[in-house]
Amino acid sequence: MTAVSMPNAGRAGGEAVLTDIDLTAINTIRTLAIDAVQKAQSGHPGLPMGMAPVAYTLWTRFLRYDPKDPAWPNRDRFVLSAGHGSLLLYALLHLARVEAVDAQGRGRGRPAVSLEDIKAFRQLDSACPGHPEFGLTTGVETTTGPLGQGAANSVGMAMAERWLEARFNRPGHRLFDYRVFALCSDGDMMEGVSGEAASLAGHLKLSNLCWIYDDNHVTIEGQTDLAFGEDVARRFRAYGWATLDVADANDTDAFAHAVATFQRSVDRPTLIRVRSVIGYGSPHKQGTSKIHSDPLGEEEVRLTKQAYGWPQDAQFLVPDGVRERFAQTLGERGARLNAAWREGLAAFARADAGAAAELAALWSGAPPAGWDADIPSFPADAKGMATREASGKVLNAIAPNYPWLVGGSADLSPSTKTELEFDGAGDFQPGGYAGRNLHFGVREHAMGAIASGLALSGLRAYTGTFLVFSDYMRPPTRLAALMALPVVYVFSHDSIELGQDGPTHQPVEQLAALRAIPGLITLRPADANETAQAWKAALGQTRRPACIILSRQALPTLDRAEFAPAGGLARGGYVLADSAGGAPEVILMASGSEVALCVEAWRRLGREGVRARVVSMPSWDLFEAQDQTYRDEVLPPAVTARLAVEEASPLGWDRYVGPRGRIIAMHSFGASAPGKDLRVRFGFTPEAVLAAARALAGRA
Amino acid sequence: MTAVSMPNAGRAGGEAVLTDIDLTAINTIRTLAIDAVQKAQSGHPGLPMGMAPVAYTLWTRFLRYDPKDPAWPNRDRFVLSAGHGSLLLYALLHLARVEAVDAQGRGRGRPAVSLEDIKAFRQLDSACPGHPEFGLTTGVETTTGPLGQGAANSVGMAMAERWLEARFNRPGHRLFDYRVFALCSDGDMMEGVSGEAASLAGHLKLSNLCWIYDDNHVTIEGQTDLAFGEDVARRFRAYGWATLDVADANDTDAFAHAVATFQRSVDRPTLIRVRSVIGYGSPHKQGTSKIHSDPLGEEEVRLTKQAYGWPQDAQFLVPDGVRERFAQTLGERGARLNAAWREGLAAFARADAGAAAELAALWSGAPPAGWDADIPSFPADAKGMATREASGKVLNAIAPNYPWLVGGSADLSPSTKTELEFDGAGDFQPGGYAGRNLHFGVREHAMGAIASGLALSGLRAYTGTFLVFSDYMRPPTRLAALMALPVVYVFSHDSIELGQDGPTHQPVEQLAALRAIPGLITLRPADANETAQAWKAALGQTRRPACIILSRQALPTLDRAEFAPAGGLARGGYVLADSAGGAPEVILMASGSEVALCVEAWRRLGREGVRARVVSMPSWDLFEAQDQTYRDEVLPPAVTARLAVEEASPLGWDRYVGPRGRIIAMHSFGASAPGKDLRVRFGFTPEAVLAAARALAGRA
Repeated sequence: MTAVSMPNAGRAGGEAVLTDIDLTAINTIRTLAIDAVQKAQSGHPGLPMGMAPVAYTLWTRFLRYDPKDPAWPNRDRFVLSAGHGSLLLYALLHLARVEAVDAQGRGRGRPAVSLEDIKAFRQLDSACPGHPEFGLTTGVETTTGPLGQGAANSVGMAMAERWLEARFNRPGHRLFDYRVFALCSDGDMMEGVSGEAASLAGHLKLSNLCWIYDDNHVTIEGQTDLAFGEDVARRFRAYGWATLDVADANDTDAFAHAVATFQRSVDRPTLIRVRSVIGYGSPHKQGTSKIHSDPLGEEEVRLTKQAYGWPQDAQFLVPDGVRERFAQTLGERGARLNAAWREGLAAFARADAGAAAELAALWSGAPPAGWDADIPSFPADAKGMATREASGKVLNAIAPNYPWLVGGSADLSPSTKTELEFDGAGDFQPGGYAGRNLHFGVREHAMGAIASGLALSGLRAYTGTFLVFSDYMRPPTRLAALMALPVVYVFSHDSIELGQDGPTHQPVEQLAALRAIPGLITLRPADANETAQAWKAALGQTRRPACIILSRQALPTLDRAEFAPAGGLARGGYVLADSAGGAPEVILMASGSEVALCVEAWRRLGREGVRARVVSMPSWDLFEAQDQTYRDEVLPPAVTARLAVEEASPLGWDRYVGPRGRIIAMHSFGASAPGKDLRVRFGFTPEAVLAAARALAGRA
Repeated sequence: MTAVSMPNAGRAGGEAVLTDIDLTAINTIRTLAIDAVQKAQSGHPGLPMGMAPVAYTLWTRFLRYDPKDPAWPNRDRFVLSAGHGSLLLYALLHLARVEAVDAQGRGRGRPAVSLEDIKAFRQLDSACPGHPEFGLTTGVETTTGPLGQGAANSVGMAMAERWLEARFNRPGHRLFDYRVFALCSDGDMMEGVSGEAASLAGHLKLSNLCWIYDDNHVTIEGQTDLAFGEDVARRFRAYGWATLDVADANDTDAFAHAVATFQRSVDRPTLIRVRSVIGYGSPHKQGTSKIHSDPLGEEEVRLTKQAYGWPQDAQFLVPDGVRERFAQTLGERGARLNAAWREGLAAFARADAGAAAELAALWSGAPPAGWDADIPSFPADAKGMATREASGKVLNAIAPNYPWLVGGSADLSPSTKTELEFDGAGDFQPGGYAGRNLHFGVREHAMGAIASGLALSGLRAYTGTFLVFSDYMRPPTRLAALMALPVVYVFSHDSIELGQDGPTHQPVEQLAALRAIPGLITLRPADANETAQAWKAALGQTRRPACIILSRQALPTLDRAEFAPAGGLARGGYVLADSAGGAPEVILMASGSEVALCVEAWRRLGREGVRARVVSMPSWDLFEAQDQTYRDEVLPPAVTARLAVEEASPLGWDRYVGPRGRIIAMHSFGASAPGKDLRVRFGFTPEAVLAAARALAGRA
């Protein structure tokens, strides 16, 4: 497409159905985006300009969404995976007069996005940040921007719908039948995470899922033919998707026909490829990478508005009738469907009060009453068990009491012990969508993003893989923390002690890397009872993701009659063992498997008459949240002889050992050998700990 | 496939060409794997048992490889992406009598893999670790195990061959025409990184690349139909690959036919899908997930050997004639081709001494003489420039003098300033494989793995993306560090100061996460001249990857007449500014953009009569490598009033500030707003630094 010869931009093949007000509304979206980017001197106008007709058509003709009740559980989800096009979403939320609600879905008595918010695009504390942020702006279903993530989230949302439908729908009671739409850019399609998620969606036959692919042929470095020559639609057919083509984004009728076709699909997800022109309407910049992420400039803004037949000097103009058009279409439809659904819910509650109560609890975000009633306590046992084993037992004791706790692993459940093994747990598969065991395949990255999609849909989700592979899923882990989603990540095989698989599988830097993520709770329990407490801590809160980091090898189950209760885990760090006769001469601190090593050294120091303290430090995050008094009780400032032991990077331990302390840690990658040999090679022996402790205590 | 009714396992459709010794050799590979896993009581026998006929056929009938000169530059590459099947590779290296060489390719006078090494599988210091490790075992072309990585590395290797071919081949001088084979598992195919890499390989029409897909239908959780229903071959055709099918891994003739077909391909890479039976020959375990990663058990070992027609009690048996068969095929062919190639190289050197010298320099691994001759020095400038800008200038001053320095970005080169802009730099594209600008598309993960493949092929590679997206490429970054590959990762947009794109794009935890990777050099220069030094440090060494972390916003170019020379960067941390009149009362330390903030505070403290020191800390890694004396000079232990300022997670700074110091850092994610507003919101102002410094110095 080359020069623009409108004013009828947006009309094209959609003429048969597009009224003047439709066209005006589409151009309102476009010009709001143009004006907001121009005012902020920052942002991405190209996508909203190109895709406004598509998004407008979807919202006004199809989306089942009630602007007055944006938390309506059965609403269709619209995910803007191409988060850089945020103004498209902000304009829609504004024009649809979506009302702001709080985390509990209660109205805040103001619009989700006001015109003032759009004018404050990308300014501090605006409801219109650079990329859409879940929790900040009502109507934003997930935080997007890092490419591929929203698309993968949408697979989790579609899985959640299928699960809710399978668990709660009854003959005569159709509570859940919503659909999930994701708008994806070329960049979304290039990222591996979207491919992983799409492959799984195809396998799972998620016919409630529709991705709209904005095929605009332009990326930041130039035309997509620089690096992206594949046949995307063919790839998706290989995944088991239906694919549909819309040759021109302005052909709203063709797009509407494609959506209607998707709605009839019963056995597979649908990709609608829409050929669009980025920055459509800009005489000098449309179809180029210039308009992807730069303001148009004042002169080009005027020329573009002229091309749209728009008042050239009007800014942030919303012509009369545009908001009303949204109200008459999306608004009226949504209100009607929501009202009918509410009636259906009431009827459902009369028919099955228990299930209705369960749903209410699910929607509340809190765990169900009694969820932790059956968490086992593990008797002291010198041989003990791997914390991954303990975790499997704890998880299987919780899950029967937590019906919407679902999860799985990236093809490692026999190793991570994340399978729900009780009767009726079931596998989530086509034809068995009520199953609670998810099988992600060898797709850690998509697993992380899907877990967020599940959490955004009200389910409590956990994942499982080896700690070293947490690296594969950092982008969605970070976004879960940013969104305050309570996903639980199980990471087993947590140190060199996994042994013979070698350094490719032995984490060293992952603990530090996870501890650095703001908001993420990192838990590395020392024995079976701390593992039980770790699950309690992770699932007991609802606003933060948590990772539970577990050993492959057996660890002694400490005798809690001799040692402090494992409940100390809730404070992040606690005094596990102490010596009589005054302040400790030396403090030994560790997390996870190295706690037992410190305990052994402590016993021997005691026999030698050295007063030592052992501090178990399963969670730095939780410890830092304690007040100074508590922290000083655990780590008295006067005791500067301190030793930390952890089979991981030393990064960060200085905070606790101080300049006169010592850290026994990993300073290189590991090696392939039995764990016992690696302990010797890398210095994690009772003798090494003892020698360091004695030296610190001045007893060498 | 069900029960085994051989002894002729391995014969199947290959009968026409398989001699008895071929079959014996195939079963030697299988039984070596079985015995090694059984002895170690750990490992993955299933893949070698299933794929031995395929690998044997490839090596003996096709691979151009000289066991006596495994560093031969024009050798075909064989990458075992499914690294868990390491014994397949170890058996091949042993039976082919590949000689061990050092990093310079000089013979070590011993085999790469002896029978004793195989017997010591997965033991400390064995040449046969759990997963293949580049640099540890000659013949291992890249470290594999984390799935998808080897496959993506192989794309980099194939790109390198194309580049070398385009740069050095001349009419009558065909120096480079090698091919790259990668053996991939179901897991490799599920990982997104392999999809990213395959898409790029298709786009680039890498007809020298062949992936052999071991389609065995089994993963750890069970059958692949649990999570992997896609049509892999169809997906690859969508990427632009040719695909071929081999219905039975034992049909060596069919496989040979497929390889021959691949060899004739001139316009696209090839995927050969081989249907195999995991653990082939094991009467009770073949075709199940049990045999993927567990020893067979003594009884099953015997039954399996019986099925192969093998002596049941023999262990680690290499029958007469097997090694000779490799010598007569692979060995003889490789020696002949290598000799001819050496003659060709000599003729090439006579025809073009300059090009031959360049090649010799390239193969040496060291940078070319004079590579840093044109690195600019930047004059003092209060307004200054973004370090990404300076980086672009420095890179473009180095690259003309470093002909095999190639790289690019994941569709962000206009932002990361990683494009080579001088005449003749060119784009690496089909038909223009000598280009030095690589276009990775929006595929950070594959970019990282491809860069390793380039480095493994002798090229000096750099990548580019935003710092926050370093998360997408951590798995290959870690493996580059493990392999000691000198890849340079350029990460721009390094803090909240990128501003309006918001928290999805603002790194917080990435600096700490990178600093935690053993061996990786992390460099965050403070101004243009430190940026020049950062490139010098990164490219000046050849055994470690390095990342150069750059600002989006302008930073003052410090007046090095007033301040210490930027060459101090080489020591990781250095005294940038000091006060006269005795020991400092307070030390201000920072990296990158926050150094200027400390300098401003230092000036004001000076006016107030407070003796302050500013320490620039661009690289903790390099600083930690200095001796204690130097470190104590920079950070005198007696000065405990210390302030660190960094717009990132505080994790790790305690080491330098100590318990009486303070850290001004990020304790949450950022926000979308202009950088100047974020500085105020998050406390990175001269006033805040000044107040903290005064308080620490007791001058509040």
